[in-house]
Amino acid sequence: MQLFSNDYFMNEALKEAQKAFNKDEVPIGAVVVCQNQIIARAHNLTETLNDVTAHAEMQAITAAAWHLGGKYLDQCKLFVTVEPCPMCAGALYWAQLGALYYGAPDEKRGYTTLGVKMLHPKTKVESGILQNESVQLIKDFFAQKRK
Amino acid sequence: MQLFSNDYFMNEALKEAQKAFNKDEVPIGAVVVCQNQIIARAHNLTETLNDVTAHAEMQAITAAAWHLGGKYLDQCKLFVTVEPCPMCAGALYWAQLGALYYGAPDEKRGYTTLGVKMLHPKTKVESGILQNESVQLIKDFFAQKRK
Repeated sequence: MQLFSNDYFMNEALKEAQKAFNKDEVPIGAVVVCQNQIIARAHNLTETLNDVTAHAEMQAITAAAWHLGGKYLDQCKLFVTVEPCPMCAGALYWAQLGALYYGAPDEKRGYTTLGVKMLHPKTKVESGILQNESVQLIKDFFAQKRK
Repeated sequence: MQLFSNDYFMNEALKEAQKAFNKDEVPIGAVVVCQNQIIARAHNLTETLNDVTAHAEMQAITAAAWHLGGKYLDQCKLFVTVEPCPMCAGALYWAQLGALYYGAPDEKRGYTTLGVKMLHPKTKVESGILQNESVQLIKDFFAQKRK
């Protein structure tokens, strides 16, 4: 079995972010990986669904749990293009996520800005994966918005 | 128009919590009120849906936004039988909720245990409404579970 890299999976999350961009949504994408396989893909749909809870991560958690037939994601990795917000971090806590990989930090609303432990103690975290690509997509989105 | 009291609305949230209890779910219920009218009702469905994000508050936010045709709940009040967790508080932040009324504190996983600001600055908060009834329902649930 071919083992895929973190960059490979983050690139798949970036493809999801691009889908959000194309729908005029803030371009954030996520994939959930279990045993080296993508079991859920999602992108931000807050405008389309008129729903503040429709972040990429929230949808990815729901879809992954549905795929697994169980609500815990302790054997899973979440790849998301931007640092999760407190809502999503709270959801990842409940899911007991195995590992979180994110691209760009969110200095305004990322969960780390709160300065308190939000994730499950078991969750490993790595950031900065394809960060430049994530940031560029967000920058392009807001530049286009301001036109 | 008859004006309903906070106790009246919390009692409606308790009815939702009872529905959760009857489904063998941790008994937490919520209603969203806009202009003295209930526009959304929900109860915890995490086991039924196999989804950690299916808290009463999350569903209530989604349903209320759907009802209003807009994602902001700044003109709304949320009545929930137990203190929201950080995930739900994060969602209420995004929704810019007008006012939060909760019954029992959650000393283990309530958002206030984090000791940081999680709600929107505009959100008013009142706690302790029909607290005894909320606590009793939770106690009954876990007593039954231990049998």
